[in-house]
Amino acid sequence: MKTSVTVTLKKGVLDPQGKAIEGALHSLGYPGAANVHVGKVITLDLPDDTSEAQIKDMCEKLLSNPVIEDYEIEVQS
Amino acid sequence: MKTSVTVTLKKGVLDPQGKAIEGALHSLGYPGAANVHVGKVITLDLPDDTSEAQIKDMCEKLLSNPVIEDYEIEVQS
Repeated sequence: MKTSVTVTLKKGVLDPQGKAIEGALHSLGYPGAANVHVGKVITLDLPDDTSEAQIKDMCEKLLSNPVIEDYEIEVQS
Repeated sequence: MKTSVTVTLKKGVLDPQGKAIEGALHSLGYPGAANVHVGKVITLDLPDDTSEAQIKDMCEKLLSNPVIEDYEIEVQS
């Protein structure tokens, strides 16, 4: 089954990459761009019998850093 | 308006980060994980009168590298 995991920084964690992009968008002529945040999206195929608990285990142990990042799991089919 | 842009590598472009994650998932006890790909998701607030052409301009000039990456725009509200 196709699965995608979106990993984003928790609220309150500094996001220098987002800030850099925001500044660059302003320089590019888009001064209205605000609250820019950058995250990761990991797409993968998993066997159909993979449980949500197993996917969470992958997220906590490998795909995200649970101290500073949140993750969201989306199973597509 | 809340906008999110997902940037992924085009098909055929080597994805060493995805390969590394795939290998690590196998080591972690999930040998069924396959086709792992890693992309970026950029979320930002834009003025309500921002046109799709302007968002595409941001994507082509700054948010993605159109030579090796595809992007997908999603306007949430």
